This record gives sequence, C-alpha cells and structure tokens, in this order.
Amino acid sequence: MLMEGVDFELAQIAPERVGRKALAVSLSDLAAMAARPLAAFVSLALPRRGGLQMAQQLYAGLLPLANEFAIALAGGDTNSWEGPLVINVTALGAVGARGPLLRSGAKPGDAILVTGSFGGSILGRHFDFTPRVREACLLQELFELRAGIDVSDGLSLDLSRLAQESGCGADLDLAAIPISADAERLAQQDGVSPLEHALGDGEDFELILAATPHEAERIIQTHSLAVPIRRIGQFVPQRGLWGIQPDGQRHPLQPRGFEHPLT
Amino acid sequence: MLMEGVDFELAQIAPERVGRKALAVSLSDLAAMAARPLAAFVSLALPRRGGLQMAQQLYAGLLPLANEFAIALAGGDTNSWEGPLVINVTALGAVGARGPLLRSGAKPGDAILVTGSFGGSILGRHFDFTPRVREACLLQELFELRAGIDVSDGLSLDLSRLAQESGCGADLDLAAIPISADAERLAQQDGVSPLEHALGDGEDFELILAATPHEAERIIQTHSLAVPIRRIGQFVPQRGLWGIQPDGQRHPLQPRGFEHPLT
Repeated sequence: MLMEGVDFELAQIAPERVGRKALAVSLSDLAAMAARPLAAFVSLALPRRGGLQMAQQLYAGLLPLANEFAIALAGGDTNSWEGPLVINVTALGAVGARGPLLRSGAKPGDAILVTGSFGGSILGRHFDFTPRVREACLLQELFELRAGIDVSDGLSLDLSRLAQESGCGADLDLAAIPISADAERLAQQDGVSPLEHALGDGEDFELILAATPHEAERIIQTHSLAVPIRRIGQFVPQRGLWGIQPDGQRHPLQPRGFEHPLT
Repeated sequence: MLMEGVDFELAQIAPERVGRKALAVSLSDLAAMAARPLAAFVSLALPRRGGLQMAQQLYAGLLPLANEFAIALAGGDTNSWEGPLVINVTALGAVGARGPLLRSGAKPGDAILVTGSFGGSILGRHFDFTPRVREACLLQELFELRAGIDVSDGLSLDLSRLAQESGCGADLDLAAIPISADAERLAQQDGVSPLEHALGDGEDFELILAATPHEAERIIQTHSLAVPIRRIGQFVPQRGLWGIQPDGQRHPLQPRGFEHPLT
C-alpha cells in the first residue's frame, strides 16, 4: 500500500511512477519467495476532483509492468474521497516444484549472495527498479537456495531478519558489498559514506540469498542472469550481524533501515 | 477498501465493526460469484498515534468472521500515517465444478430470485450482515443458476446491471419485494416509502439470482437455507427495468442506488 505524503509527493512524482511502483514492490515480495506472478488486484482511493485522470495515469504506469511480467489485473476496488491518494496492490503468485523460498532456511557456513547494488535509491531508483522475479524463479529452479528475502527496508536490516528467522548470525565482508552509483552520488551530497548508504538506505528491491559455498560458486558462474550476483559474506552460528574489515577485524554491526513506526 | 470519513466515522462506529465489514464486503463479492473463500489479504493505513490499538480492534472484529468462514489471513501490509484510517481486504476464493456464477447468463423468461430483505441497512445492518457465501455455494452446487450479483449499491441498480450484462430487461413485481424492518423504520423517520428504501438504499449484501421458472420453484422449496429466498419478478426481452403494480400496470423504473462519483 502506497500513501501520498508518506511514500510519495504528487508535487514531485508523476502518478505513472507511483502506479508502477505499487505493482513493482508487490512483485518484489513474490520474487523474495521465488513465486511466479499470476495476477494483481488494485484498490484505489482517488481524489474526488481529477480522480479519473489520476486513475488513468496510475494505470499507464502500472500496465506496462503487468504486461512485462504477463500478469492479469484480476480485480480490485476504485473509490474517491477528499483524502490523499492511496493505492494498494495485492499480487498473487505460484511457486515451482521446489516450493517457496523462505527466510528460515539459512545454515551457518552458507554464503550470503546479493543481486545488484545498494544505496541511494531515494535518488529515483526506488520508483524505477525492476523486481527480481525472473532471477529468483530461475535460481530457485536451477540451484539449491536455502533462504531468501528482498531488500525493502535496508540491506543490513533485512539480512539481520533473514539470519534471525534462520536461527543464526551473519558475517558481512564490508569490502565486498556492491555499492551503487547512487550511493556514491548521495555520499557527496550528505557526507554519509557510500557504504553506510548501501547498508541502511533500503528500497533497493534486490535479493539476499543463502546457499552452500559450493552452490554459491556455481550461481556466481551462471551467465544467464541479467543482473550481477555477488557473495558478500557468510552465515555464522553466533547470532547477530557482524562486519568484517579487509584486514580481518570483526565487529558487531547495528542493523539499520526503515523501521515501521506504530504505537 | 473502506475509508474513514466516506464509509464510516470513527466517532460513531467501533473499529471492530469496521474491520468486520471490510472482510464481509469482500466475502459478499465472492458469494456473488459462488466462490468458496480461501484466504484474505489485509492492508492498513493506520493513524500514527493509537495505531497499534486500532489495528488490534480492527482484527478483533475481522478474525471471528475469518474463522467463521475458515479462511486464512495470508498476507497484507501494515502502515501508519497522519491521514484517515484506510483498510483494504482482498479475498481469494475457489469456484466449484460448475465454475463461477456470472452476471451475464440470465435469459428472458428466467425468474428473479433474491435472498433476505432490503432497505434501511444504514441503521446498522450494513456493518453486521452475514455475507451469503454458504447460500451461493450451496445453490450453485445443487441447482442450475443462470446469473447472480450481490446487492451493494442498490436492489434496482444492481438488478439493472445484471440485466444489462445479460442483454435483457427485468420486470419487478413491486408487491413481492421483501422489505426489511429497517426500511419500515427509516420510512417513519424520513417519509420516503419503505418500497423506495428497499429499491435504492443499497448495502443489503443480499443475492440476486436468475434461474428458469422451474428451477426457481425448486429453489424456493428448499429448506436447507438459513435465509428466505423469494421470487420478485422475471427477466424480459425488452431492455430496461420495469415495475409491475399489483393491478398489472407496467411502467419504467429508474434504477437507483449508490453511483461511484469520479470525474
């Protein structure tokens, strides 16, 4: 569910990009479980004035993505009110023969793999990213993945959630983390390091995967993916998140990212 | 999708009833297609202050209904903001061997059947109704239904939609329409006739069904339903909606009910 004033400002972002993102974040949730998308249900709370045009713009952004992933827009609800724009997408998918990819299957010794690069998505990528559906389904079919999650709230926070669900901890090779050009650019603006941006910004909508070292090596050698996959560390018996410096020093790492405020 | 200020006022309605209704209206949509409910996905935009308690109250109303119909709450999204409360429920169902009940299958000569009674739901029934899921699934399994719809926007408006999708018109026996006690009570308050309330109020969440006269007779004789079913007219070749007076006079009837404003 994306809400005006929280997830976007209509003064800054075209409705087409909002509509596209509303579907894309749900497809990323399906990718996190290695589910093939089948259908989506779209509910709208539109402004009473200009709502029809707004709906057309939202769908103009949403439909090409739905077509790209061959999913049916199978239902939903269209409303108008005096309140801010709200768009909710429920996406439905089907898992393959190996079942869903869960957060709970990582084992100490497993490699930590990630797709793409991290940080600075606020500069625009958080609207225009490609959900890693094809990558997740292909990898789940061809390899033995142990666990997975998508990075919506922050690389370090989402990794710590996966580790926690799996009953283990995680060592992150800090020098191995793929840092996006956006993180570098943002660092020049705000003085926060590119690595910090990569670890905590969130909304990268990349995948974190767990696999045995042998399987991880095979995955990295695969040439059939449109996005690079890198190994950024390993799962360990000791609970918690740990940063490994290039000189081998190991220190606790505070998971950072977007925590959903609710009191 | 139910929205504070449009579908309810929190000053007047306990959140438990809002949560229950959000699921119930979606179950009524499944009933309209004779689908057995399987799962529901709940998305919330909660107030930032008091949102946790609000969520608990919404679910306290929603969960008993989910249990009554044995459906899983299988996902969703929980958010907070400074805006009004929004709750969206997407319900998933499965159709039986005869497939879904559609709006488009009524034929001239078919009887018009309805469950329950109509009008005045604003007095409270529009929150506390029982979606006609069991009735729809049972009837679809045991009899040959031609078409169906649930009454959300108004008996005459939703009937005219079904007739239009079926490419025919409908004769309504005005004296046969089951009028609820709420419609009688509301009529005493506002001077609008009970019949007018029954025809146009909406949010009755009863079923309108089409069946051959023979099948309709068999359905009416069924004793296994918890709700009365009555015949209120028939579908006719001439497009439009027609009211039949007890003396046999026939005049055009303007479909009335809630039209969704969007400009």
